[in-house]
Amino acid sequence: MKQLRVGLLGCGNVGGALVGLLERQRSAIAARTGVEIRITRVAVRSLSRDRDVDLPSEVFTTETRGVVEDPDIDVIIEVIGGIEPARELVLRAIELGKPVITGNKELLANHGAELFANADDAGVDLLFEAAVAGGIPIVRPLRESLMGEPVNRVMGIVNGTTNFILTRMAEDGATYADALAEAQSLGYAERDPTADVEGYDAGAKAAIIATIVFGSVVVAGDVYHEGISEITAHDMATAARLGYVIKAIAVVEGTPSSDPDLPPEVAVRTHPAMVPCGHPLASVRGSFNAVFIEGAAVGDLMFYGRGAGGLPTASAVLGDLIDAAVNLSAGGTGRIGKLSRARIRSIDDLQSAYYLSMEVNDQPGVLAQVATEFGRFGVSIKSMEQQELDSGARLMFITHVSRESDVRSTLRALRELDVVNEFHTLIRVIDED
Amino acid sequence: MKQLRVGLLGCGNVGGALVGLLERQRSAIAARTGVEIRITRVAVRSLSRDRDVDLPSEVFTTETRGVVEDPDIDVIIEVIGGIEPARELVLRAIELGKPVITGNKELLANHGAELFANADDAGVDLLFEAAVAGGIPIVRPLRESLMGEPVNRVMGIVNGTTNFILTRMAEDGATYADALAEAQSLGYAERDPTADVEGYDAGAKAAIIATIVFGSVVVAGDVYHEGISEITAHDMATAARLGYVIKAIAVVEGTPSSDPDLPPEVAVRTHPAMVPCGHPLASVRGSFNAVFIEGAAVGDLMFYGRGAGGLPTASAVLGDLIDAAVNLSAGGTGRIGKLSRARIRSIDDLQSAYYLSMEVNDQPGVLAQVATEFGRFGVSIKSMEQQELDSGARLMFITHVSRESDVRSTLRALRELDVVNEFHTLIRVIDED
Repeated sequence: MKQLRVGLLGCGNVGGALVGLLERQRSAIAARTGVEIRITRVAVRSLSRDRDVDLPSEVFTTETRGVVEDPDIDVIIEVIGGIEPARELVLRAIELGKPVITGNKELLANHGAELFANADDAGVDLLFEAAVAGGIPIVRPLRESLMGEPVNRVMGIVNGTTNFILTRMAEDGATYADALAEAQSLGYAERDPTADVEGYDAGAKAAIIATIVFGSVVVAGDVYHEGISEITAHDMATAARLGYVIKAIAVVEGTPSSDPDLPPEVAVRTHPAMVPCGHPLASVRGSFNAVFIEGAAVGDLMFYGRGAGGLPTASAVLGDLIDAAVNLSAGGTGRIGKLSRARIRSIDDLQSAYYLSMEVNDQPGVLAQVATEFGRFGVSIKSMEQQELDSGARLMFITHVSRESDVRSTLRALRELDVVNEFHTLIRVIDED
Repeated sequence: MKQLRVGLLGCGNVGGALVGLLERQRSAIAARTGVEIRITRVAVRSLSRDRDVDLPSEVFTTETRGVVEDPDIDVIIEVIGGIEPARELVLRAIELGKPVITGNKELLANHGAELFANADDAGVDLLFEAAVAGGIPIVRPLRESLMGEPVNRVMGIVNGTTNFILTRMAEDGATYADALAEAQSLGYAERDPTADVEGYDAGAKAAIIATIVFGSVVVAGDVYHEGISEITAHDMATAARLGYVIKAIAVVEGTPSSDPDLPPEVAVRTHPAMVPCGHPLASVRGSFNAVFIEGAAVGDLMFYGRGAGGLPTASAVLGDLIDAAVNLSAGGTGRIGKLSRARIRSIDDLQSAYYLSMEVNDQPGVLAQVATEFGRFGVSIKSMEQQELDSGARLMFITHVSRESDVRSTLRALRELDVVNEFHTLIRVIDED
């Protein structure tokens, strides 16, 4: 029986769950792969912390670099998170020819190009299923099964915290503040929720998805972000009345280049969107994640599951670990290779339908003034609703598919109008299939 | 640039779509893999048939075996279907060391053990993503990403025809006969719909899924089948009132063995089931497919997409083809290996909740008599409803989780009762999570 000796960097939620899962599955994996996998060294920040992990104490060390460089370690799992020292440790492991498994979305979304290129040069596996949508097997299907598929668009609910908050708002009428507080008390949201609610976490995952799908490097800084903190109970109710549910989504789109030698232009963004109630993404509730793929040949696909949590994420790491074990044993490797930098399309060029809501004076001629501004910038109105308020009226519009820059020009012009008192909301609307 | 020369056996719906898709994607695939894939020979039944396929006429031949044995062919794609001559051709290709890609569920569900063993001995790839759930990448995630996952149960909507019929019945109140006729007129159902509506097609896919998930061979003959032709509009309406939707599902379950040296006992069945409306499978509508996986570590996962059709299935074949190309170029292969025969658990041992409906005389004491029979066999009633009919009454029960054999004993006893006039329906009920 071949042995695979694993060095684990980090033993928190995911690392701890992995130790238990591997213990449980070791003999089944050995029977199916011919490789016995053992975690033989674990680097942690503090040796004194009490861990609910069934490993002998001599396995633990605080010397991360020592684990990476230990000649008795065949594979490195990095679950410490953050950029440094994770980046340096991963690069060193690759340099030593050791396959690396990481769940570090921040690292990949910022330094993916460097890491992929080094792994390719060294001919070692760099696997990262756990970095996108936790336990959902999405990286391997995108990298391998769908490598030949002409993918038009990927839309993902890839942040469980915001999906939990929006689900509570949509289904129970909770306010944003209450739903956030509940998410925090349940441990779904951090005390500082910025990374989740402003879309940075989802943006990092979107950058990784875009990189895999379009085969050219997209970094976190390329992603256009809008958060969910401005979404109100009123927006939720209006969306429901119109047959939509508001979801925080990450969107990755590729536009074929007119020059056949150029790669497609890639657009990557995270923002709230109105999703039609009949769309499969609309039924993704609570802290669940899903990735919806629109392929020219395969049609619509969706992958659904747990996007976070120790055990689901450990399951993704274990899948990669088995992959690395089999590859090492068979002498092959994965295959991302060297990627060029993607050409990023500006949010200004987005073609979408939009929902806009604003408060106006309730007096003759207001609607005409407002409608004129839409027309001036070529934004065509699909449907419109007016609600009486104590002072004035609320106007709500859904546009036909328009160019984002034209909608923004309309918006600026509307804000200049004396009759418009307050501009509330701009939400992109996902088209029905 | 490396060249991969493909011999295509069969050029119908899937084969034709594959030729077009590969033409469109050839340069993108070459850029990402370093391999140029070309279909250089195509075996068809008749050379005179007009095909909408952009290949020179000299590529076509009626000599299937000649294509397999052609030394200028590197890889074989089998999309002719059926057992023979497909089996013989696939075995011959393996013998010659040529990777085989097949979408033939019937072949795999009946001769998988032989084919996997021969491919393992010869060290060649035998890939079959297209055989289960068409375009949905499910075989690779199950084989690779989830190889280490302790999977408790897989439930799939893996037959688009029955899901289309049941969706029309549930959403539009269509009768079974009308919905079937519509499916036939749309080309979703064959003129003889037996393979679909009686669950044989789903059963073959379930056998393949069970084989991959539990790593031991399950054949089509091991699968317990019940069809959907007995489902009535009344069943649909009752299910809806109780918060369920009736779906035709394939279920694969593994029960860990008490003897650690024995593989798990596997239960495989296809039948209609009442699925709770909040369950992700309940929202899979029309001809779409989905596979729902319950893992001990990863939690709930679902893969959703097009389970049939030329282009989606061709997309799955193309994914396998790229895999084979990369493996050939890197010198590795896939990894099913030699599998032992699974131990199959009888349907009698199933633990499930059940829905039962029957017509009885409307007279004092009937309910007590009926309830006594449930009690006699230890079947506990969770909820009960009575409806008045023109003659007599209809009783509808949902049981707590019970043993199938006990429910069947109850059924036999109920049928003996003079007061029970007609026994309508027995439908298994999927538990809420």
